[in-house]
Amino acid sequence: MGRLRLSFSDLAVDSLLVSHLPNVRYLCGFSGSAALLLVESHRSTLFTDSRYTFQAREEVAGAAVHIAKRGLLRAAGQALRTTRVRRRVAYSTTHTAVAEKLALEANAGSRIRWVSDGNVIEKLRAVKDPEELAAISEAAILISNVFQQVVPLVKPGVSELDLAAEIEHRIKSGGGSGPSFETIVASGPRSAWAHARPTPKPLRKSELVVFDQGAIIRGYCSDMTRTVHVGEASARARSLYHAVLEAQQAAKQAVRPGAKAGDVDKAARAALKRRKLDRYFTHSTGHGLGLEVHELPRLGKGDGTVLREGMVLTVEPGVYLEGVGGIRIEDDVVVTATGYSDLTTAPRDFLEL
Amino acid sequence: MGRLRLSFSDLAVDSLLVSHLPNVRYLCGFSGSAALLLVESHRSTLFTDSRYTFQAREEVAGAAVHIAKRGLLRAAGQALRTTRVRRRVAYSTTHTAVAEKLALEANAGSRIRWVSDGNVIEKLRAVKDPEELAAISEAAILISNVFQQVVPLVKPGVSELDLAAEIEHRIKSGGGSGPSFETIVASGPRSAWAHARPTPKPLRKSELVVFDQGAIIRGYCSDMTRTVHVGEASARARSLYHAVLEAQQAAKQAVRPGAKAGDVDKAARAALKRRKLDRYFTHSTGHGLGLEVHELPRLGKGDGTVLREGMVLTVEPGVYLEGVGGIRIEDDVVVTATGYSDLTTAPRDFLEL
Repeated sequence: MGRLRLSFSDLAVDSLLVSHLPNVRYLCGFSGSAALLLVESHRSTLFTDSRYTFQAREEVAGAAVHIAKRGLLRAAGQALRTTRVRRRVAYSTTHTAVAEKLALEANAGSRIRWVSDGNVIEKLRAVKDPEELAAISEAAILISNVFQQVVPLVKPGVSELDLAAEIEHRIKSGGGSGPSFETIVASGPRSAWAHARPTPKPLRKSELVVFDQGAIIRGYCSDMTRTVHVGEASARARSLYHAVLEAQQAAKQAVRPGAKAGDVDKAARAALKRRKLDRYFTHSTGHGLGLEVHELPRLGKGDGTVLREGMVLTVEPGVYLEGVGGIRIEDDVVVTATGYSDLTTAPRDFLEL
Repeated sequence: MGRLRLSFSDLAVDSLLVSHLPNVRYLCGFSGSAALLLVESHRSTLFTDSRYTFQAREEVAGAAVHIAKRGLLRAAGQALRTTRVRRRVAYSTTHTAVAEKLALEANAGSRIRWVSDGNVIEKLRAVKDPEELAAISEAAILISNVFQQVVPLVKPGVSELDLAAEIEHRIKSGGGSGPSFETIVASGPRSAWAHARPTPKPLRKSELVVFDQGAIIRGYCSDMTRTVHVGEASARARSLYHAVLEAQQAAKQAVRPGAKAGDVDKAARAALKRRKLDRYFTHSTGHGLGLEVHELPRLGKGDGTVLREGMVLTVEPGVYLEGVGGIRIEDDVVVTATGYSDLTTAPRDFLEL
């Protein structure tokens, strides 16, 4: 938590109350579903409830554990109240509900001045340390392998749900603790839904199928998309696929320390524009990846975030044509000293199955 | 949304802005991951983003769809701004972050008076209609069947993770859209962690194993726990198991329309107290169940919520002895006109495997 305390002077605070669970886990290791972490200049305290007594004892490092009997907000608020001096406490305005804030204020009393933490922890988390990179890389390799194992099962008649179940089963049997989000298998016109859930719909001949999936290893996520074709594809489908692959390659080439997140997005969009396909690319080019499947930075239009070595990003352009289908290709990359390195190992050839 | 509008006069508002995704889904059918629903007296509008254009068109009933180009909070806030008169708008203080509230205020302008919605939608959702009950019942039967299929695989050497993966695979292949939460398989001393995640730890002879799992069907959740023993159990383990089963039965007997949620909890605690085990029962007795796996009402100590016909509840007492292990038995029940009816169909015998 040392790096975090360095930001206390920037924020002009003497404490930071952490409520977002991935941030709690990042800072002290606790993975339970009820927690508040109070980071003060000379000590830290994790507040959780009695369900997690044993788990907290086993997992938490660098913080005292306080089992709250009557609510975490009350316990954390009251811990702040004991102070005799006025204090400035940072908290997350994006991860604290209005009602939670009111409860904190009521319990902590009027001596506390609450200030926004400016996403300081999310910004720290964007740059991964070697241990984190190892976990993400393992998760990326695992999902690459799982996808390749499932490819032979793709044929007319098998349902989206069966394929999704198979992927999620293999994630666990392959050593992942689970999928990093609900696996997407979307076929035919449904492949044009960028976030479709799998349904009992069977695959049919001459359809595009989008597979978007990720695995979790030691808490860290991977995220990968591949698009395949059932049976022989039309020239049009092949050309769309190669346009997306070209856009992905262009975006990756823009990844390096010092570049802006928006530059990566711009590179993908420019490549698609050359093929007059940019209007079918309806989402941003990618996002950070770590303890959460969506983290900073966001590779969106005009985003000024400067990329730094050790950031992990998805690069995932796509085109979506209503009534026809969608094509998306997504890899995880790490920003290196000179550019990028792929973490995803699955091939990117257009598979006609 | 008619029933919801009936509450407008109680809240003294003319509109309600819905941000919690399960509430959005409940009211208009949209299941995407980015949405705000503005319910006004004569119309409703769903705000989502371009990723969900097609999905919204297919799913949404009873609301116009607005694809927001520059953020949902901005679009919804500005939709409110167009009014010429002062308006009172209800919103959820528990499901709106401080930063989101600030963005709404900035976009909607100063004519809007924001008031807490008092969890009005969550309260409506607590009582299920026949279609919802059918989905939950199917989900409860599915998870009962899945568990019984997995029981024969329980033996020394098989890992917690393998069993969890098997359960989640069978949920999907059995027609569920997925697990309703991350499946818990916790063995030996880890079974005393009420919310342990499965690990690569293999089961050993003479251990308790807690299985806590649920399935989703048509968006609705089930939630069931069973505790088994690897090999022959000691007299002590059997007696603990039967104490928990007795407590569960006592709690179920307290379920009927007009009873209070706290009465059900009290019945479970009293039964365990007769065996001097109440201090090992460290969580509440249960919770509502529906589109979310934790809903109103909460069967906690002293909770005054009055039970009503059509509510669906989990009843899940447990005892947790550090270093020894934990035992929890959980069923889903529906409140009927005269008492309760079990939705979970898996037997509750103590299995020594």
